[in-house]
Amino acid sequence: MNPLDIPAYMAHVGVAARAAATAMARAGTREKNLALTELAARLRSHGPQLAQANAQDIAAAEAAGLAAPMVDRLRLTPKVIETVAEGCEQLAAMPDPIGEITGVKRRPTGISVGQMRVPLGVFGMIYESRPNVTIEAASLAIKSGNACVLRGGSEAIHSNLALWKLVQQALVAAGLPAEAVQLVETTDRAAVGRLIAMPEYVDVIIPRGGKGLIERISAEAKVPVIKHLDGNCHTYVDAQVDLAQALVVTDNAKTQKYSPCNATESLLVHEAVAAAFLPRIGALFAAKGVEMRCDAPSRAILAAVPGAQLVDAQESDWSEEYLAPIISIKQVGSLDEAIAHINRYGSHHTDAILTTNHPNAMRFLREVDSASVMVNASTRFADGFEYGLGAEIGISTDKFHARGPVGLEGLTSMKWVVLGQGEIRR
Amino acid sequence: MNPLDIPAYMAHVGVAARAAATAMARAGTREKNLALTELAARLRSHGPQLAQANAQDIAAAEAAGLAAPMVDRLRLTPKVIETVAEGCEQLAAMPDPIGEITGVKRRPTGISVGQMRVPLGVFGMIYESRPNVTIEAASLAIKSGNACVLRGGSEAIHSNLALWKLVQQALVAAGLPAEAVQLVETTDRAAVGRLIAMPEYVDVIIPRGGKGLIERISAEAKVPVIKHLDGNCHTYVDAQVDLAQALVVTDNAKTQKYSPCNATESLLVHEAVAAAFLPRIGALFAAKGVEMRCDAPSRAILAAVPGAQLVDAQESDWSEEYLAPIISIKQVGSLDEAIAHINRYGSHHTDAILTTNHPNAMRFLREVDSASVMVNASTRFADGFEYGLGAEIGISTDKFHARGPVGLEGLTSMKWVVLGQGEIRR
Repeated sequence: MNPLDIPAYMAHVGVAARAAATAMARAGTREKNLALTELAARLRSHGPQLAQANAQDIAAAEAAGLAAPMVDRLRLTPKVIETVAEGCEQLAAMPDPIGEITGVKRRPTGISVGQMRVPLGVFGMIYESRPNVTIEAASLAIKSGNACVLRGGSEAIHSNLALWKLVQQALVAAGLPAEAVQLVETTDRAAVGRLIAMPEYVDVIIPRGGKGLIERISAEAKVPVIKHLDGNCHTYVDAQVDLAQALVVTDNAKTQKYSPCNATESLLVHEAVAAAFLPRIGALFAAKGVEMRCDAPSRAILAAVPGAQLVDAQESDWSEEYLAPIISIKQVGSLDEAIAHINRYGSHHTDAILTTNHPNAMRFLREVDSASVMVNASTRFADGFEYGLGAEIGISTDKFHARGPVGLEGLTSMKWVVLGQGEIRR
Repeated sequence: MNPLDIPAYMAHVGVAARAAATAMARAGTREKNLALTELAARLRSHGPQLAQANAQDIAAAEAAGLAAPMVDRLRLTPKVIETVAEGCEQLAAMPDPIGEITGVKRRPTGISVGQMRVPLGVFGMIYESRPNVTIEAASLAIKSGNACVLRGGSEAIHSNLALWKLVQQALVAAGLPAEAVQLVETTDRAAVGRLIAMPEYVDVIIPRGGKGLIERISAEAKVPVIKHLDGNCHTYVDAQVDLAQALVVTDNAKTQKYSPCNATESLLVHEAVAAAFLPRIGALFAAKGVEMRCDAPSRAILAAVPGAQLVDAQESDWSEEYLAPIISIKQVGSLDEAIAHINRYGSHHTDAILTTNHPNAMRFLREVDSASVMVNASTRFADGFEYGLGAEIGISTDKFHARGPVGLEGLTSMKWVVLGQGEIRR
């Protein structure tokens, strides 16, 4: 086969994935767990090989003049490798979701009706930079009994090929088909166009990357897409609040790391505590060089903070995902105003209330229409690993099918099971 | 507003639906149940008014020369009305799915993580003929805390308007917004084009109707579609089987009613019982005028049945949804062959095995990739009412989000809830 014949190559990949999916759906729990522990062991024992492959990508990225944060995303450090190896073991230790039958109830007709969890089939994963995603996707595919076709970024191709080799070895060592996890070996962009338009071979596409990429894939895909657009996350400091705790949590939500989608981008403060809270958080932000884009009332209070970088917020700031040391700040008159603001300007990703008032906490949980809603915790916790999913395949900002961090269950569907003794419909 | 300005009219409907959805998401269980019992009471007490409206549609349909089965689908008989009224009461008696928090687990970091069931928001429903769908959709919307926009067939417009009036009265009597259930009052087809392309107002579209309609809507919709394509359902008679029971169940699956999507369209018989089973089921089918499209081995056996209408099956017969007194019949050599045939030619709707062999029953349940898989029961049971869902909004032949009969849960999503005491991400 001509390696440049992309449609033929992708069809070949698709046929193999579909066949492997049938075998994976039938695979025993023991075999799937063995593949995961074999993979973890191989990740740990192949440090030098992985470092060598990764060095090629890093050197190429630096030679191409990639910005330092982009180069950092490529790095397969021992810590990154240990984290994904632990993720594999955590998945192996989890109950097998497949074949679980729940909610079986006897109906008046005599039949018993319940639901069985089964794999979706084949998922396609399109991602950039971070090569650890290769292992996260592969391990979730194995445990969930799916096959997958992975398309990583061209800048990480050597790292991804090295990781994929270990995945295939682990599958074979466990008696499972190597084709259950396939990596698109070409960096030709046309391969992505094919991957998202083969409903006969691929059941769902999971893109991870910039908003532009995801919007384009969603528009062009011929299969469902589990998509993650932006993360405009809010932290709301309520009128009744433990101020010292609110200070620590708000600081962590914004500054622990600026680039993740679950970092807080907008701070809402109830007017009853604005004068007490804003100068203290403002001083912390000023010390860390965080620019504050303020409405008029919060700016008036923050003006007294030495060294504060204050900017008048524009209407567009309320919708912005900065992914940078910038935060928008607004004073609100009530919980209702806070909820309405979040539902209007937020991206339905993750929003937190900091409060000691129980009814307000419950209303916030119920009424904020976001994938993750939190009480007295940092928005940075919105993550499959932190939620105990073992690993996450992505974060969905849709309401449909899977919402928020997507782990094993998001890669399955529930089919109906009817157990009878010869019943007929009257 | 000019009643012919469809975009303006539909935007008006959409804005009202979105606003009502917010109120419905917050609505108490008591209010939602009251609306349902009020609706049931009104359906029962307004028989004459409903009959009068329905008579207008029936007269128009007969005048237009609609075929008798089509006219029958339009009929709001007392039995149909009693069934939907009972459906409303059954829904009222069911637990409120909204606000349910499940799976809360403490994580090592100290946070507790669980999931809360919430409404999807606004669903659009596009359907034909049967006016009872108006009540089924409205009642499911009310219980699930969603708003909905209903677009019934023009042939049922008077019946639908009369039913809708009762729905709005019931909503208002329960203190809920009348706009939570809206009926598109124009029969202009352009309204459908708008309804499926307003992601700002409508979260999901549920079409019910012919395959052509559903394919067109799926292709053009700008929001997710819960779609039901065809129902090519199989009944497989295994080698070890209670022949008398298999006879009753197979007969029921095919002939109890020919038009529903869950009627069996294809019969697979293990060769070990073909000689014993086929002549008996063939005689039943012959007596009821059911045409049999056979492979060569089954035709050879059925040739001895007096009066049997036998036709040689073509390759296309294995994929056909007849919705008529026709059945395709094939002899298979093994359970594996039966499963492979169903997964290849079936429509992943509903398939049943009739067997006394437990391992075979379990393999069939696990390996047949259909929305409903059954053991020793008639495929005709694949129905939300029969499954205990109270009512069904449709049957999904997709694997994504909702699969098979879609009741309340298919109209909800699960958001993540994090309960902390000031935890931060390290």
